Amino acid sequence: MQILKTIQELRDFRAKCSGDVGFVATMGALHAGHAQLIKTSVSQNNHTIVSIFVNPTQFLPGEDLSRYPRTPEADIKICQLCQADAVFMPEVDEIYNQNEIKILAPKELSSTLEGVTRPGHFDGVCTILTKFFNIINPTNAYFGKKDAQQLIIIENMVKSLFMNVNIVPIDIVRSSDGLALSSRNSYLNDDELAQALKISRSLMKASNLIKAGELSSIEIKKAMSSILEPLRVDYIAIVDKNLNPVDKIELGNSIILVAVYVKNTRLIDNLWV
Amino acid sequence: MQILKTIQELRDFRAKCSGDVGFVATMGALHAGHAQLIKTSVSQNNHTIVSIFVNPTQFLPGEDLSRYPRTPEADIKICQLCQADAVFMPEVDEIYNQNEIKILAPKELSSTLEGVTRPGHFDGVCTILTKFFNIINPTNAYFGKKDAQQLIIIENMVKSLFMNVNIVPIDIVRSSDGLALSSRNSYLNDDELAQALKISRSLMKASNLIKAGELSSIEIKKAMSSILEPLRVDYIAIVDKNLNPVDKIELGNSIILVAVYVKNTRLIDNLWV
Repeated sequence: MQILKTIQELRDFRAKCSGDVGFVATMGALHAGHAQLIKTSVSQNNHTIVSIFVNPTQFLPGEDLSRYPRTPEADIKICQLCQADAVFMPEVDEIYNQNEIKILAPKELSSTLEGVTRPGHFDGVCTILTKFFNIINPTNAYFGKKDAQQLIIIENMVKSLFMNVNIVPIDIVRSSDGLALSSRNSYLNDDELAQALKISRSLMKASNLIKAGELSSIEIKKAMSSILEPLRVDYIAIVDKNLNPVDKIELGNSIILVAVYVKNTRLIDNLWV
Repeated sequence: MQILKTIQELRDFRAKCSGDVGFVATMGALHAGHAQLIKTSVSQNNHTIVSIFVNPTQFLPGEDLSRYPRTPEADIKICQLCQADAVFMPEVDEIYNQNEIKILAPKELSSTLEGVTRPGHFDGVCTILTKFFNIINPTNAYFGKKDAQQLIIIENMVKSLFMNVNIVPIDIVRSSDGLALSSRNSYLNDDELAQALKISRSLMKASNLIKAGELSSIEIKKAMSSILEPLRVDYIAIVDKNLNPVDKIELGNSIILVAVYVKNTRLIDNLWV
């Protein structure tokens, strides 16, 4: 497996790839969720490139950019074990310069849900991915459904700008007790981890209610709220695939999203129904 | 020569191209300046694609979008004579949809000069070109130096987003009496056309002064102003290639730009020194 630091190294590597190239964009601190993306890419492409880059433009002032977990040695090991062909780990000034172009995510999709507390976050995501897609020129790019809004915005960007990449959504990976894997879980102590289980339990409750025939968004949210107590809930939302709120679950076309604070750590999870 | 209306038709055509593909983006109303771009592309590439698309997002409210000259039959004829291989003439709703991503040109470059009277104009230019570059995937793209600021912003966008296209600047084409060719010249009557000649004459004066050793921006602007009278001058600017004003001409690295109103028509011209 090759470790590539510069764009030139990446381009030289890419020029030698034949067939399909899979791409997994990460901010490092890799866990089994990322491993699932990488393994899927490896199984579906002739070559797989993983980027490890803590993208500054998707963090807001005051967010956790500086303390975001950085575990490069372990990340490289995981990429190796998953049989990635190359890891792209550029420095910030390799990617960003002066007179930067900005990509603005569509307002309709980016100002709701995560966008309320993180205005500008998705613009940074779209900007870095546009750069990476152009540098790497992947056939397929793999994104987790855990970041549902991000996934929908990326799919939209690719369609809107006619980018030549196929976006592949991958199911959420959970710990054995249900917690959706996230690099930010590393901020939690044991007590907080136990509290965090309420998130997936609330979604499980929603799933069971829906299976029993309950489709009312109000009723489902009510049941979820009571499970999430006493956590500080940022939002519970039930939306369609354009992120518009729906009063009634439409099977195959609805997403239930949760964002809560476990002490100071903000966690998100969701369920596609 | 093929006339392509849809993205699918364009992609099918592009898939059959081998070797280098040249691209000339136009808003139609083609004149000898465009012909020069097309001919250069034809001479330097295996295939040349010309787009004819009056891009709504680069017009501000109240600008001349609806009355912008549209001469599709003549345009197609010119493309044929210049030996283009394909003309891409999509409808607006083939290119723009709901939930649109926006590209923001770098503020440092887009808020000055043209950006003062046309805020947002270059965002629209960057957005449509990003779409077209992704749809067409050209090896080389040809732009006239007439739109100097646009050219610099495009070069910057390509660098900033690591786009895989080579931008080729092409010298301004002028009528025999010096007027820089522009689709908007068609708005001028004979009297206005005569007035418009002051623009290129002021630049010619600047060129002569510089040849005679005058490098002071103030002095050059003064001489230009007196030639441009009584036209309403929007700006005379002398800048470096980052569009920063300079007090003194630096040969090989300066651009003199003019924007004036001839009656209601706003015309621009420039000189790279």
